[in-house]
Amino acid sequence: MYKEKIEQAVGILQEKNIDMWMTFVRESAIMRDPSLSFIAGMDFTWQTALIITAKGETIAIAGQYDVASLETLGTYREIIGYVQSVREDLRAVMQRLDPKTIAVNYSLSSPTADGLTAGMLMNLREHLSGTPYQDRLVSANEIVSAIRGRKTPEEERRMREATRITLEIFEATGQFIRIGRSEKEIADFVMNEVESRGLEVAWDPAHCPAVYSGPGTAGAHASPTERKVGPTHLVNMDFGVKYEGYCADLQRTWYVLPPGESEAPAEVQRAFQVLQTSVDKTAKAMKPGLLGKEMDHISRQYLLDNGYEEFPHGLGHQVGRECHDGGGGLFPEWEKYGEAARMPLEVGQVYTIEPRMTLPDYGVVTLEEEVIVRENGAEYLSKPQETLWLIKS
Amino acid sequence: MYKEKIEQAVGILQEKNIDMWMTFVRESAIMRDPSLSFIAGMDFTWQTALIITAKGETIAIAGQYDVASLETLGTYREIIGYVQSVREDLRAVMQRLDPKTIAVNYSLSSPTADGLTAGMLMNLREHLSGTPYQDRLVSANEIVSAIRGRKTPEEERRMREATRITLEIFEATGQFIRIGRSEKEIADFVMNEVESRGLEVAWDPAHCPAVYSGPGTAGAHASPTERKVGPTHLVNMDFGVKYEGYCADLQRTWYVLPPGESEAPAEVQRAFQVLQTSVDKTAKAMKPGLLGKEMDHISRQYLLDNGYEEFPHGLGHQVGRECHDGGGGLFPEWEKYGEAARMPLEVGQVYTIEPRMTLPDYGVVTLEEEVIVRENGAEYLSKPQETLWLIKS
Repeated sequence: MYKEKIEQAVGILQEKNIDMWMTFVRESAIMRDPSLSFIAGMDFTWQTALIITAKGETIAIAGQYDVASLETLGTYREIIGYVQSVREDLRAVMQRLDPKTIAVNYSLSSPTADGLTAGMLMNLREHLSGTPYQDRLVSANEIVSAIRGRKTPEEERRMREATRITLEIFEATGQFIRIGRSEKEIADFVMNEVESRGLEVAWDPAHCPAVYSGPGTAGAHASPTERKVGPTHLVNMDFGVKYEGYCADLQRTWYVLPPGESEAPAEVQRAFQVLQTSVDKTAKAMKPGLLGKEMDHISRQYLLDNGYEEFPHGLGHQVGRECHDGGGGLFPEWEKYGEAARMPLEVGQVYTIEPRMTLPDYGVVTLEEEVIVRENGAEYLSKPQETLWLIKS
Repeated sequence: MYKEKIEQAVGILQEKNIDMWMTFVRESAIMRDPSLSFIAGMDFTWQTALIITAKGETIAIAGQYDVASLETLGTYREIIGYVQSVREDLRAVMQRLDPKTIAVNYSLSSPTADGLTAGMLMNLREHLSGTPYQDRLVSANEIVSAIRGRKTPEEERRMREATRITLEIFEATGQFIRIGRSEKEIADFVMNEVESRGLEVAWDPAHCPAVYSGPGTAGAHASPTERKVGPTHLVNMDFGVKYEGYCADLQRTWYVLPPGESEAPAEVQRAFQVLQTSVDKTAKAMKPGLLGKEMDHISRQYLLDNGYEEFPHGLGHQVGRECHDGGGGLFPEWEKYGEAARMPLEVGQVYTIEPRMTLPDYGVVTLEEEVIVRENGAEYLSKPQETLWLIKS
């Protein structure tokens, strides 16, 4: 897949009119620049520059003991090994290629485009000091966002398979949930389903799956507890598997019927339908070129218009190799989201749509779908949950 | 262990005369600041400031959905949750505590002290802009190096156990190596020994263990191949297990006797003895306060004095949670090592000593020991290899 993504990167550099993209890392097993997963399937010990240019050149300058692995990898046409310092080789390559702009991996708003450490940026400036190139460093935010966002057919295949398996496990879990079972027991059941398929979960196993039952739960990003499922509880689960390096991230909500009852209270049904409609309205509105914050507003405003509180988080994020992936998201214009709220949708991006509301007597209603952006609109990657799922006693 | 290390951090801040140490992270599951392993056993999604002061205050400012996990963790006395932006709470804490110096995790020379990304340093400067605190940011290199380097008794116990198990597996491997077995078969045997103990290896399984047999091998940081062990080969292995989060990193060399022979050629024996003596001379010279580059020089010069080439890498690095850990190392003054070559040895640090030489007709002679620095000198953490190990046909 590296060659496919590197070719895509060359096209993106041309499109964005950037001469050179440089990923500059060291000891990447300790702090791994997230771009490495697309341009090199290995780690580097000493200061290493992985260079891709708009003309299609691919150059790696690395410590000599990493050269053998780089040769085996085979994705860099020119490999330069050094012993004492990367500096002279780096300056020589700059003088030879004379790039007008050099994009490096820092970003204020996107963690996946921010793989360059502060010390390494200082080192890079020192290596280039006294040359014209020290003033030509720019943020690679747009480039990395495009590479991560625009899924190739192979990437899309893996993501579809990840969501398919995730939903299969959600269905099995619905059969397992019953009154008296604890959040932890449900989470253990899910983990067992994941491991029996030889897979791993898409994020920190401390809260993947996250399982919440009933009123007064932590509601997000917390670990399952000994709390037991009870009648009239809303049970939510936030969960996904990782399949061939690509994540799924979905949420589903069940309502636990008390003995003898066959449907959820009107208040609960209405809340779910409003939430579900807000997801669907957003999905139907999504088109390339529209901004993430415009999409967030649709769902957020629909909840407010129907008398519910707005959710205290963004509507959705991109998904890919990381569960929270890509540059832009479906975010409101809050300071913490910065530029990520103002980036346009692009063809091939995969977003979650995940509004939430709290019903004080029952628990939390959540729903999280994944959609992929096409030329003419968005398409569900996951089979959407259209009605509240019921647990019968 | 977090409380123990945070208490140690407070003492180090007092010693270094630094008012505040701030670890500033976001999406730490994607890029994990290596300091988190000492001060928080969890990951953070949104911009998060973990603050420890010389007065012993511990404050966490985090996205609201991370607050429940922080409370469970219990290591921060003051926990502040936010929804839209970390900025106001961060500025309020600064105004309240009024630190004269704020150490943040960037370092030119030490990857484990360089956990702050370039974009996050820019965000931090923006949050503090217009306040006196934006000009009070300094590198936490010395602080992080001391925290990682100065092992507590519990950390030392884990490291001793990691080296003990690693040497046990080296011994078993010596029984397995024989003429005709490939590097890959030997590596598979080692992996099986590791997994049967329920452990994992200390670094990338692509080259842990690294196994090299005979002349003309890659020699370091490359994966085991189909090359078969043959008579008169030198076989080296670079390997370690991770035990309760702490790494071992050792190397051993075997000589493969041709049928009918009972000892290695004089040339091979002499090379090993010179190498082993250079290790032992270094270990005996190590004392708190001496510089890493002085230790590197002892072994390097001893090899040169005995007519061998110098090795194209540093003599040794620190070990801990990471295989390449800590600030200073036993490094020559090459540009790539920067300040790390000029840092003093401190009590409680664990270093490898790993010179190397190549014998064109036989292969590579390597040896890697681990030592811990005491008040009066260094002590071997691993039982040293004192003679060349022989494989009998």
